[in-house]
Amino acid sequence: MIRKVAIIGLGLLGGSIGLAIREHAPNIATAGFDADPEVRRKAQTLGLAQHITHSSVEAVRDADLVILCVPVGAMEAAALDIADALRPDAIISDVGSSKQSVAEALSKALPNHTIIPAHPVAGTEQSGPEAGFASLFANRWCILTPHGDADAAKVALLSDFWTQLGARVELMDAEHHDLVLAVTSHIPHLIAFTIVGTASDLEEVTRSEVIKYSAGGFRDFTRIAASDPVMWRDVFLNNKSAVLEMLGRFTEDLTALQRAIRSGDGDTLHDLFSRTRAIRREVVDQGQDDAAPDFGRDH
Amino acid sequence: MIRKVAIIGLGLLGGSIGLAIREHAPNIATAGFDADPEVRRKAQTLGLAQHITHSSVEAVRDADLVILCVPVGAMEAAALDIADALRPDAIISDVGSSKQSVAEALSKALPNHTIIPAHPVAGTEQSGPEAGFASLFANRWCILTPHGDADAAKVALLSDFWTQLGARVELMDAEHHDLVLAVTSHIPHLIAFTIVGTASDLEEVTRSEVIKYSAGGFRDFTRIAASDPVMWRDVFLNNKSAVLEMLGRFTEDLTALQRAIRSGDGDTLHDLFSRTRAIRREVVDQGQDDAAPDFGRDH
Repeated sequence: MIRKVAIIGLGLLGGSIGLAIREHAPNIATAGFDADPEVRRKAQTLGLAQHITHSSVEAVRDADLVILCVPVGAMEAAALDIADALRPDAIISDVGSSKQSVAEALSKALPNHTIIPAHPVAGTEQSGPEAGFASLFANRWCILTPHGDADAAKVALLSDFWTQLGARVELMDAEHHDLVLAVTSHIPHLIAFTIVGTASDLEEVTRSEVIKYSAGGFRDFTRIAASDPVMWRDVFLNNKSAVLEMLGRFTEDLTALQRAIRSGDGDTLHDLFSRTRAIRREVVDQGQDDAAPDFGRDH
Repeated sequence: MIRKVAIIGLGLLGGSIGLAIREHAPNIATAGFDADPEVRRKAQTLGLAQHITHSSVEAVRDADLVILCVPVGAMEAAALDIADALRPDAIISDVGSSKQSVAEALSKALPNHTIIPAHPVAGTEQSGPEAGFASLFANRWCILTPHGDADAAKVALLSDFWTQLGARVELMDAEHHDLVLAVTSHIPHLIAFTIVGTASDLEEVTRSEVIKYSAGGFRDFTRIAASDPVMWRDVFLNNKSAVLEMLGRFTEDLTALQRAIRSGDGDTLHDLFSRTRAIRREVVDQGQDDAAPDFGRDH
């Protein structure tokens, strides 16, 4: 049974876990720590955990479950900091968007502990302690990527924990996770960051024009491109091979479309655009997005 | 004064114009035509225009303003159909997303008429007569691209018309329009269509996984990639040079990021991601998108 959870890092994800526990699993005690004193102060005011501690060592004391909610590039250092204070039987988990690199970093820092990497596929473009909310994980998938020799009982405990917070849990191989998320999350972010950057750097079209006429599609990309810069820098550096692999596929397909436009091959364009329309229907049918037009924006 | 508007093409845009006139300018008479009898039947039921006619010739009779709401590739044929039935002083306009090609097509088909191309930068991913709504143009920009020698009084009339429907009007050179919209609308659509296609074609990641984990960013792209295939095919074929120019810039920038990822250059990534975050704030500050996190999706 999980009696106490320590949350290391109190941004959007860490804060939402604290609030979700308070709402859905009030019997679980929580302690939270963030390296930034200003974040700790806000976390205290917002009640993101029962105890906001002055060190991560203090937060993890007696915790059955420690969840590292820091950028994936900071996992190893965060794990080393708490190594000596952890309960020997504690489950160490995280919420990072790349899983092979995290498994490696945590195994290196904590060779004698049970490490079960996790990735709740949920978030918004906001970040920081004020961005969290209790229902962030409701009906979202949380992917666990336990190593083959992980303690099955502990995997079940972690799975139950995420289910309590409202998530649906799936087990997956870390390598496969990294490939799936490269295409469903990392590449979409990369191309959104890119086009927003391209648009703001043009000489022929002013930045104010780009913003003014953004309702034609561009504004959707600005939302994604507003996500946390440090988190995303780390994701790309830590899921490099899957991201580069998927980027190669994307670029090939884009080049083919470029050729179709140049040669006036309308059939190729029409065929693709009809296929992609069907995918949207599946996303909505499977409850992964609202059916309301334009994301239900107020018109 | 505009007393009667003829709407040719009763999809999302044409239907919304009809409904917006009914709501905001009830003194203006409306006639509507669509080449598809099923669309005409639905338009009749939905009241998209006062008179749904059996031919475009019938619809434009006595109209002061004729708005062609057909895919940009179909403009010339639609204009030729009505050429002999138009009032000599009628204003001929449209709602197409590319303006140089439309200006050319309409001038060719109707050399003796006043042509004022227009582009309301508004829409959703839905299409067809049932997708329209009266407030589609509220607070959205409508760009008019009159030729230099266009009758100023008629430009003012058309401008007033769009203002009545709730839009904000801007005049622009057609060539510049095509460049601005290439970057704020056409390229975003093209890359959304591409990534959704790429994701659904992978061997290593199943289509059901792509849909299941789409909340990580991909689902935003599926919305855009659900837009009308014929309309978008025509946009790319008719704004070819601006689209290819902007696509070249995008590809250069993407290649630079690819290199940064490969070489582990985190500073380049972080710098870009911080800049793009600022653009989002401007989009929201200028009322071009809601401030609510995640587009205000229900969590």
